[in-house]
Amino acid sequence: MLIALAQLNPLVGDLTGNAAHLLQAAVDANRGEPLLVVTPELSLWGYPPRDLLLRPSLIALQNGLLDQLASDLQRQAPQVSLLVGIAEPTGSSALPNLHNALALVAADGWRVVYRKQLLPSYDVFDERRYFVAGTAAAVLPWPHTGGLRLGLTICEDLWVDEALAGQRLAGPDPIAALQSQGVDLLLNLSASPFGLGKLALRRQLAARAAARLGAPVVYVNQVGGNDELVFDGASFMIQPDGSLTTQLPHCRERVVTLALQPRDTAANNGPQAPPVVEAPARAHPAPLPDLPCEQEQLFRALVLGVADYARKCGFKQALLGLSGGIDSALVAVIAAAALGADQVKGLLLPSPWSSEGSISDATALAQRLAMATHTLPIATLMQAFDHSLAPVLGAPPSGLAAENLQSRIRGTLLMALANQQGQLLLATGNKSELAVGYCTLYGDMNGGLAVIGDLYKTTVFALCEWLDDPAAGVCRRELGLPASGPLIGAAIRHKAPSAELRPDQKDSDSLPDYAILDPVLKALIEDHRSPEQLIAGGTDAALAERIMGLLRRAEFKRRQAPPVLKVSRRAFGSGWRMPIAAR
Amino acid sequence: MLIALAQLNPLVGDLTGNAAHLLQAAVDANRGEPLLVVTPELSLWGYPPRDLLLRPSLIALQNGLLDQLASDLQRQAPQVSLLVGIAEPTGSSALPNLHNALALVAADGWRVVYRKQLLPSYDVFDERRYFVAGTAAAVLPWPHTGGLRLGLTICEDLWVDEALAGQRLAGPDPIAALQSQGVDLLLNLSASPFGLGKLALRRQLAARAAARLGAPVVYVNQVGGNDELVFDGASFMIQPDGSLTTQLPHCRERVVTLALQPRDTAANNGPQAPPVVEAPARAHPAPLPDLPCEQEQLFRALVLGVADYARKCGFKQALLGLSGGIDSALVAVIAAAALGADQVKGLLLPSPWSSEGSISDATALAQRLAMATHTLPIATLMQAFDHSLAPVLGAPPSGLAAENLQSRIRGTLLMALANQQGQLLLATGNKSELAVGYCTLYGDMNGGLAVIGDLYKTTVFALCEWLDDPAAGVCRRELGLPASGPLIGAAIRHKAPSAELRPDQKDSDSLPDYAILDPVLKALIEDHRSPEQLIAGGTDAALAERIMGLLRRAEFKRRQAPPVLKVSRRAFGSGWRMPIAAR
Repeated sequence: MLIALAQLNPLVGDLTGNAAHLLQAAVDANRGEPLLVVTPELSLWGYPPRDLLLRPSLIALQNGLLDQLASDLQRQAPQVSLLVGIAEPTGSSALPNLHNALALVAADGWRVVYRKQLLPSYDVFDERRYFVAGTAAAVLPWPHTGGLRLGLTICEDLWVDEALAGQRLAGPDPIAALQSQGVDLLLNLSASPFGLGKLALRRQLAARAAARLGAPVVYVNQVGGNDELVFDGASFMIQPDGSLTTQLPHCRERVVTLALQPRDTAANNGPQAPPVVEAPARAHPAPLPDLPCEQEQLFRALVLGVADYARKCGFKQALLGLSGGIDSALVAVIAAAALGADQVKGLLLPSPWSSEGSISDATALAQRLAMATHTLPIATLMQAFDHSLAPVLGAPPSGLAAENLQSRIRGTLLMALANQQGQLLLATGNKSELAVGYCTLYGDMNGGLAVIGDLYKTTVFALCEWLDDPAAGVCRRELGLPASGPLIGAAIRHKAPSAELRPDQKDSDSLPDYAILDPVLKALIEDHRSPEQLIAGGTDAALAERIMGLLRRAEFKRRQAPPVLKVSRRAFGSGWRMPIAAR
Repeated sequence: MLIALAQLNPLVGDLTGNAAHLLQAAVDANRGEPLLVVTPELSLWGYPPRDLLLRPSLIALQNGLLDQLASDLQRQAPQVSLLVGIAEPTGSSALPNLHNALALVAADGWRVVYRKQLLPSYDVFDERRYFVAGTAAAVLPWPHTGGLRLGLTICEDLWVDEALAGQRLAGPDPIAALQSQGVDLLLNLSASPFGLGKLALRRQLAARAAARLGAPVVYVNQVGGNDELVFDGASFMIQPDGSLTTQLPHCRERVVTLALQPRDTAANNGPQAPPVVEAPARAHPAPLPDLPCEQEQLFRALVLGVADYARKCGFKQALLGLSGGIDSALVAVIAAAALGADQVKGLLLPSPWSSEGSISDATALAQRLAMATHTLPIATLMQAFDHSLAPVLGAPPSGLAAENLQSRIRGTLLMALANQQGQLLLATGNKSELAVGYCTLYGDMNGGLAVIGDLYKTTVFALCEWLDDPAAGVCRRELGLPASGPLIGAAIRHKAPSAELRPDQKDSDSLPDYAILDPVLKALIEDHRSPEQLIAGGTDAALAERIMGLLRRAEFKRRQAPPVLKVSRRAFGSGWRMPIAAR
């Protein structure tokens, strides 16, 4: 049998456009013989559709689109069938009233063939808000499998191994049910967002299921950035022995067709279909592509996140403030890779406290990237605000209020330019800053997207070091960046972090070294540890209590932060739901 | 038997403080004879605890606090038992791993007596994220009921009547299970946020359950503002015939003790306990207090929301911009009632486009409220920004960019003063503006709390009209406001809405009249209608499409808005989860 893994990039909520995209994938893959095109979870909607699922008109739109898709297939690719992710009404008036379901769409019509059994409602996921769990395992009722039994699962249905995933949902084990029914191949239609270490985890979970079933697993993941989530694709086929026989690229759309054959065709008529082997669908199969290293995965995911956020929101150009520091340098590189350096503008906004080096470093970075900059000194505006405010305050603003004011002058200038020029302003703050509140609301937090808001400062350093390493050359070239020589530059990478909001200020005046801070933050945020637990584990008591206090008190800032591209297990944003007025 | 309805105001996440508050309620209510004190849902945590429930250290803290509470009762009020809302670990490692449960705490120890069966995961509620549903009805195992059987439910367990509530959750009907077991009284421990029309709905649902069970219902609701949610208390007891026999106040803490007696004491030894009647626990019962009218409910809820957000975040003073318009006038009145007029500062920020009337109207309002103001003209700063930006843009900012710039100058001035003076900045935008994006991110949207962000402009008008009506005199006096004479004033109430961001600008230049806009917005937001449905219902097609487009395109602004005090069925905030990069 022929099967195509369609790693597609949908636009959330654009059911009509997504249906057209699904059809195009089917037409492109068509070879005039029976072919099953497997698409990601909720592929008609794009994942996550969030509260668009509550719109009755969109639910009603689905049936017509699926009918249309069937008749389009009949005209344009009558031997191709599509396995499409849909939101199926349960028919009940009690809430929730949808299933996260799969429809088999073919020239002769469409039908629902499976309903997701494990509905994630943790972290960024809210599926119990919209969906009722299905209760039955299912084998694909498709007549062209050559006798093979294809088991169906959707995303979380595969995440049943607590030892591997670190958690599992209360509920049935969908793999166990298929195990007892017997399948020759397991399909998993996913929308699994990027995270560091996630590629290996997905493979391990699929390999475990393949071993339990004694059958290979075909894992098809969504690709593309949707607000804070970046879906990285990297779909694959894995054998019961754990060997990977197909690997689709990371962070790019791709459709790959495979020919599946029973390993022992002589035994094909028995009641139990034999194990499947995968055969190349083309005469000369390409070798399995290596997956990128973790730094490259991270970089590509951030680039895709920015590119898709801009494209899907209708922006061609981006703007950012260049401070000469490492955070804005990294965001500039990401933006240049995402949109093209000629579509990214940098604004230098020096104050009397800015170091000379910072201005020259920012300028040199922009030159390396071939990115245009402007410089707008803010001293005059600082004085103008001081003059305006002094009569009310009795004196010009001082301390944190004066530092915040500088940041807000910059934020206001950036927004004025972005508004006037129709650009997407990118926020450049990192996760360590967002965590402890070392950032200014309505100032440096301004922007449509917080590009590196889920990268601890130490991660920013590591990623920039990789970017400047020759090992990144191929990736840089592929993404349209200068391929050789330093990009961030040693001057930026090695300077002591500073907000430069008062003379000779250094981050280390207010915060512990990032090498000490970041592991504590990670334990508090991603593992929900308490200060007491950290202290028991050897962290300095005053430090642990202080960082916890900072984390808690900055909640009001984070509530008003732009969407943060998620790359860790727990990012600030929709997966972090903390009260503000609380203890 | 004696029962106390303890309508308490917890601090979310402050388990230790909340336990002390529970103990105090028990000690205060103690009369030296057996007494059951009924508290709100999750009363040990405060509702909603949100992701604090994911902290293992807080879960672990509970047991010790409940042990302590039992031993404190033994020492201080040994005949009092407390029914406390807790998060009970299921003991499973599969997620979620908690029950939303009730513990009966008495001098001799504590035990879990019920687990919530219907877990709301719609709108602002996320209970499936944290909790597994209980599966069994329960009658309170308390030895001092005089033979009465007390059925236990938690909040949503009572919301099983779809015809009344407009929706119901898929799952069991907890009332039906109790009906078959037979109870003499139903307890419902709630944390039900304020909403217009919600008081009547709660009563209807309770009355319906009382009728089905042939037994009265005691409904105990949380009170207090927790971030965007205002819990309005208004606990009550209702009889099977629908008559209300106890009513606690709206938006205030209160503990009321009732004596419950079997109606026919002669039949009290039979296998089926007889119906309950309520007797006054004091010699001279107070008459049932009238509940306030809808405008007063709304006003009191907003006042409580501001008062508690400030108090629970540690602010004593608030600051707001006074434009002379009706929105900031209303917020000023709410803030004065919440914090005292002497703790609220108004800032007038006139531009060259501000009308003379606006300045005098704002000043007159402040005088009526006895609230201090300062005036900071922004013309100089506008010019300074124009001078800074012109070299980059080739000309000073124009159009929307120039309008936004004015708003951001004001927002920056307000934040500078609030930061320097340790004040809570209150945002003054209304729901109509937030819906269509007629507001400036990092400008007039600035603030820790969007006080009237869930009030359509037409609701703002209506509430201000009520405030100026003599009918509001008693409420105004009770809340420390001037009791007589206009407060908002006719000049402010009757002027045409204007952002005054360019000469002679009126809202009606850009938007339909609010009387036309608001019903369309309500249908789109609260009923999730589509433009097509509105057009089919008679709305002008171009208008419906245009408003839908504005609503969709403003999503990125709302994502960065402060918490909005929720008063409607669907507010922007945690109950509105729309993608940004979507169609």
